Amino acid sequence: MAEKITPRSQDFSKWYQDVVLQARLADYSPVKGCMVIRPNGYSIWEQIQKDLDRRIKETGARNSYFPLFIPESFLKKEAEHVEGFAPQCAVVTHAGGKELEEKLIVRPTSETIINSMFAKWIQSYRDLPLMINQWANVVRWEMRTRLFLRTTEFLWQEGHTCHATHEESEQEARKMIGVYAQFAEEVLAMPVIPGKKSESEKFAGALHTYCIEAMMQDKKALQAGTSHNLSTHFAEAFNTLFLDKDGKQKAVHQTSWGVSTRLIGGMIMTHSDDKGLVLPPRLAETHVVIVPILSQSESKSRVLEAAEKLALQIRDQGEKSNLPYRVRVDIDQDETKQPGWKFHEYELLGIPYRIELGPRDLDKGQVVMTRRDLGKKEFVLLEEVPMRVMEGLDAMQKALLERARSFKDVNTFRVESYSEFQQKLDEPGGFFIAPWCESAQCEARVKEETKATIRCLPLDESFLPIREAGKCMVCNGSGSSVRAVFARAY
Amino acid sequence: MAEKITPRSQDFSKWYQDVVLQARLADYSPVKGCMVIRPNGYSIWEQIQKDLDRRIKETGARNSYFPLFIPESFLKKEAEHVEGFAPQCAVVTHAGGKELEEKLIVRPTSETIINSMFAKWIQSYRDLPLMINQWANVVRWEMRTRLFLRTTEFLWQEGHTCHATHEESEQEARKMIGVYAQFAEEVLAMPVIPGKKSESEKFAGALHTYCIEAMMQDKKALQAGTSHNLSTHFAEAFNTLFLDKDGKQKAVHQTSWGVSTRLIGGMIMTHSDDKGLVLPPRLAETHVVIVPILSQSESKSRVLEAAEKLALQIRDQGEKSNLPYRVRVDIDQDETKQPGWKFHEYELLGIPYRIELGPRDLDKGQVVMTRRDLGKKEFVLLEEVPMRVMEGLDAMQKALLERARSFKDVNTFRVESYSEFQQKLDEPGGFFIAPWCESAQCEARVKEETKATIRCLPLDESFLPIREAGKCMVCNGSGSSVRAVFARAY
Repeated sequence: MAEKITPRSQDFSKWYQDVVLQARLADYSPVKGCMVIRPNGYSIWEQIQKDLDRRIKETGARNSYFPLFIPESFLKKEAEHVEGFAPQCAVVTHAGGKELEEKLIVRPTSETIINSMFAKWIQSYRDLPLMINQWANVVRWEMRTRLFLRTTEFLWQEGHTCHATHEESEQEARKMIGVYAQFAEEVLAMPVIPGKKSESEKFAGALHTYCIEAMMQDKKALQAGTSHNLSTHFAEAFNTLFLDKDGKQKAVHQTSWGVSTRLIGGMIMTHSDDKGLVLPPRLAETHVVIVPILSQSESKSRVLEAAEKLALQIRDQGEKSNLPYRVRVDIDQDETKQPGWKFHEYELLGIPYRIELGPRDLDKGQVVMTRRDLGKKEFVLLEEVPMRVMEGLDAMQKALLERARSFKDVNTFRVESYSEFQQKLDEPGGFFIAPWCESAQCEARVKEETKATIRCLPLDESFLPIREAGKCMVCNGSGSSVRAVFARAY
Repeated sequence: MAEKITPRSQDFSKWYQDVVLQARLADYSPVKGCMVIRPNGYSIWEQIQKDLDRRIKETGARNSYFPLFIPESFLKKEAEHVEGFAPQCAVVTHAGGKELEEKLIVRPTSETIINSMFAKWIQSYRDLPLMINQWANVVRWEMRTRLFLRTTEFLWQEGHTCHATHEESEQEARKMIGVYAQFAEEVLAMPVIPGKKSESEKFAGALHTYCIEAMMQDKKALQAGTSHNLSTHFAEAFNTLFLDKDGKQKAVHQTSWGVSTRLIGGMIMTHSDDKGLVLPPRLAETHVVIVPILSQSESKSRVLEAAEKLALQIRDQGEKSNLPYRVRVDIDQDETKQPGWKFHEYELLGIPYRIELGPRDLDKGQVVMTRRDLGKKEFVLLEEVPMRVMEGLDAMQKALLERARSFKDVNTFRVESYSEFQQKLDEPGGFFIAPWCESAQCEARVKEETKATIRCLPLDESFLPIREAGKCMVCNGSGSSVRAVFARAY
């Protein structure tokens, strides 16, 4: 009954949609641009939340919850912010059967409502740093949506911190982009380029924005997380002031940082294949599925018993292992489905290990094991299975990262001239590193003519954009240039 | 600097507000009726989520996420449902800079939007039961709000299940009210009366509603969780049909069930006292705070070292214990605050154990321990502290439940006549068990004349309202009566 997945080579965008829908990760909803995250997809979000939440708390931030609604006047207090977000807002005009005196915006992000509270809670330098995070839904009205990658409503975490000095907020903004980069690589097995956004691409209201950019299998870029140094922009608009040690009232220096359910889309487009989802073991709800071959009634109970014993042994081995998660094992005892159907199904769902256990294998004291990313059947002695699973899960997590890393590296090119860039952008495609003079005109020209954008400016050890000897790829100007990563992006 | 908490005896409502604000559990927001849940309050919600989520998953439900917005026409499909919720809706009329063709309701609950998806996903009996849960925010425009107990926006979980038969959905609705009752007692240490709502109090759109009702320290009732058998009401409105084994198309039988951040308010009003929050250990983020007495500089490092060693020993003992949570220990090394100030602060915050460790105590090989609910200082030998903490945390969890249970029992009265009920309702107050003829008129009369309502109809072993020999308390009618719990409620 399984539908066919469009091959990546044929239509990458259709392939992505096929994987998401057929693996039942998400579905379109009757509300324009809003998606439904189905249990198979939501369990990935739960794994992301659990791991990232721990990392965020280790930085000292604590979770909180702020209102969904923002009074319209709040959004208007920071000029750049309202300009950036107003066109995307959903507006509540009526409630409780009456027209509201002041319209309420469904939060597109929470800097404004949170600052209205920070201003109340912060009095002195003793109250700083103040670091909070919230896991929440946000709404940004989008014209073109795509499951997980760009939806009108999405789930995310947004951190908001207040500091006494510019140095501290800068430190925090940098630290968090590092946390995201490490998380993306360790958990999503998704290599990223950390960098700084150009002025035109930074967050509306920020002094500057750091980001992580990942390369999808179609060689397009995906912005996977951002961290903003907000300076005192919102603090000044909201009077978020503190009495410093020197007895002076000062505006706090702030950061905000977030990642969203978009990460799930990025993870899918990094690892999955024409058979369906490929899930890094650290994101899997089920790591191993045992498919007992129950076709012969005389061997059925013997096979089932062996499957149950094996499942226990694998779980036990998991408890003793160093893996940073509990190894979860399922046995598929459904007799209304054929083993061949099940194999396809578990490939589609991205379960890291599939183990077939039939009566003949059992007689030989072996099973057939298949690691999802390798897809090759292996005969393994029963007693060796638990250890092999642990090794394989660990190896798979690393292999996915390495494969994605080399894909990104192979498809990242140094270009010196605009014509070379234009030649290579369609074919072979990829990320293009080139010198840029930092003028908005050159940046806009590239975007207009090629639909590629500056994804980020890679940073040196001091977190400054790397300076290049070369002349700007676009204008060939003689001033100093920075190194920029150009690519088409989601 | 600590503000004074209004004593419960003076003004219970003000006392509650003082505890919530001063323990920094929550704060009022600039958006009418919406609250901010601060880190001290949100950590309680996180403990609730972690524990209840596990219980919900054990029943077979899986987490998902459905859109925040509901097309207005969806809400109108189930007649009773729209009648119940329309007056409380917040309505999005504009988005992306344009007026919407169809207004969107910010979900007050998700039966309708979820049914629109269920109808798409369910084809045959093989797809049943389908059981999902979501953790989400919902909005109900309220006239009078109260922190945690009744807010315009609140956080909750809502489970939604589909079954092939009435028996199965009934079974599920009953099972979930049992899960909630057990959770409330085991984790919140809050005893509850499970029962059935009267027709006038049931969920808008349900066949019937089961609930758990708790008694607060002011003897008022709090509805702490509900579970609805929706029958085929929504399935018929949304065409959520399945092909049954007999080859016939049938509407699925559904349930929905939920608890919210209101539980935090209920927990506070069950256990806390005039010194502040009293937190059941299972909900505590920090179980033990060690306050080293650092006033004498010559003993400072010795005291701090002993505090750190003790903290480690308590954590180790926690790992070995049977407590269903990790025991978390903090050391307060802040030298800008006096020990006396700290003692009050930790009482206010409800930390289960406070341990004072000074140089003189250290010489004697002892510490001073204070369990939050007992408030009595005890000298305990250093080596006995870890074990005493484990025993004490376990004992405190049980003691809070027992104390609340006996409070509820002592303040629950059997009454036979309406006059007796009216006499006792103000003084002593409490829950009143009385026979009721099941007529809406009698119910309405009580509500109008006394502001008390039927909280629930307690159930027998077959989950049927218990029949009484007595005549209806209100009309004295001679027909058969059911046992009803009358009380004033939040």
